[in-house]
Amino acid sequence: MRRAVSWAVSWFDLDIGMKQEKSVVLLSGGLDSVTGLAMAQQRGLSCYALSFDYNQRHKAELKAAQRIAKKMRVAEHKIIKLDSTAFSGSALTDNDIEVPEQESDGIPVTYVPARNTIFLSYALGWAEVLGANHIYIGVNVVDYSGYPDCRPEYIAAFERMANLATKVAVEGRPIKIETPLIHLTKAEIIRQGVQLGVDYELTTSCYQADDEGRACGKCDSCRLRSKGFLDAGLDDPTRYL
Amino acid sequence: MRRAVSWAVSWFDLDIGMKQEKSVVLLSGGLDSVTGLAMAQQRGLSCYALSFDYNQRHKAELKAAQRIAKKMRVAEHKIIKLDSTAFSGSALTDNDIEVPEQESDGIPVTYVPARNTIFLSYALGWAEVLGANHIYIGVNVVDYSGYPDCRPEYIAAFERMANLATKVAVEGRPIKIETPLIHLTKAEIIRQGVQLGVDYELTTSCYQADDEGRACGKCDSCRLRSKGFLDAGLDDPTRYL
Repeated sequence: MRRAVSWAVSWFDLDIGMKQEKSVVLLSGGLDSVTGLAMAQQRGLSCYALSFDYNQRHKAELKAAQRIAKKMRVAEHKIIKLDSTAFSGSALTDNDIEVPEQESDGIPVTYVPARNTIFLSYALGWAEVLGANHIYIGVNVVDYSGYPDCRPEYIAAFERMANLATKVAVEGRPIKIETPLIHLTKAEIIRQGVQLGVDYELTTSCYQADDEGRACGKCDSCRLRSKGFLDAGLDDPTRYL
Repeated sequence: MRRAVSWAVSWFDLDIGMKQEKSVVLLSGGLDSVTGLAMAQQRGLSCYALSFDYNQRHKAELKAAQRIAKKMRVAEHKIIKLDSTAFSGSALTDNDIEVPEQESDGIPVTYVPARNTIFLSYALGWAEVLGANHIYIGVNVVDYSGYPDCRPEYIAAFERMANLATKVAVEGRPIKIETPLIHLTKAEIIRQGVQLGVDYELTTSCYQADDEGRACGKCDSCRLRSKGFLDAGLDDPTRYL
């Protein structure tokens, strides 16, 4: 009898699985990526969240990613540990470089070499294993125009490469890199997220948040976030130090 | 006095550094990658070798990479540990899948999802940190036509993406993905390597070599290698089990 029930459940899962398209969602634990996740779920995609532990200063982000993945009931949440020797020369991973409170023009010191390319490559590998045809990444050109790997032309080039790289794509099921936030202002992102029921208190954006996820309120990322809530005319649920 | 000497050495290093272009060289420890390294050195590039520890069955390859890096006096050899949960579904990383002795048509079971894309992405990050404008990868379409991420159109798409992704490229110093072996037969690769003084006894190509680097002589990779030496009319220095 126990076996019969188990088979019934398996067939049910299989049935649902065949109807629902899958997406890998890059989930940093910040405001943008969680909004992207909510949008992917709204579209009816089964979401597989992917986070990275790469010796970033803001470990609080990873805790936030775990809270979000659980609350938003993703199909699976994978945290990939990246060898930290691979990243250096950025204020986000290198303790010798100070996180600036005011960003200057050009490419910011918080830029991490090839970071989005490495993240998207892992997402591509997992998408291939899962048979997922979507990869969500919360890049944005409005607020972070200094990062070369956040631009639409970069994303288009990655997608083109991905569709030559993989078995899935070669077999005729192309992969789409989804960037629903790319042209939105922070206020627009927040308004859409709130409409979709995102609880932003769960997220951490600060580059130097403490272990409890409390934000400094001073860094580039904090200032953008705070201004976003102000512009959106919504209360800022961020916990500050 | 000690300080004066030290400064002199620094300026000397800087002087040399400014004249010699740098290259990241993906070094698996196999026959192809070591030939690529020899070609890059022949061109006068200062070579930074990059290998990956990704739970591959053939750990002997990594030992070979270390031997080669030392003997060929690369500027630096970095081994990046990859979280093995990122790779699955391939006979090269998954112990449940048997390595075939005879490959069938289409994409081989030894294909690892998005592997070259992940390797090249790390190489790109390191190239950016080093200020290197070349990345060598020993891909080949003649013998491994089944792998989608060994094709020239894939490499071209990766290079295009890389030149939109990075600070180095945005600042006007484009990165070139170098694939000098891509259209060579195994025999041609071996002949060129021997001319450049490569000691192939140091390399390991077998998918299931033992800890001493002795090859099975039966797998796809062993058969291609052995045939290469035969076609080149050269003695095969491979140590077999």
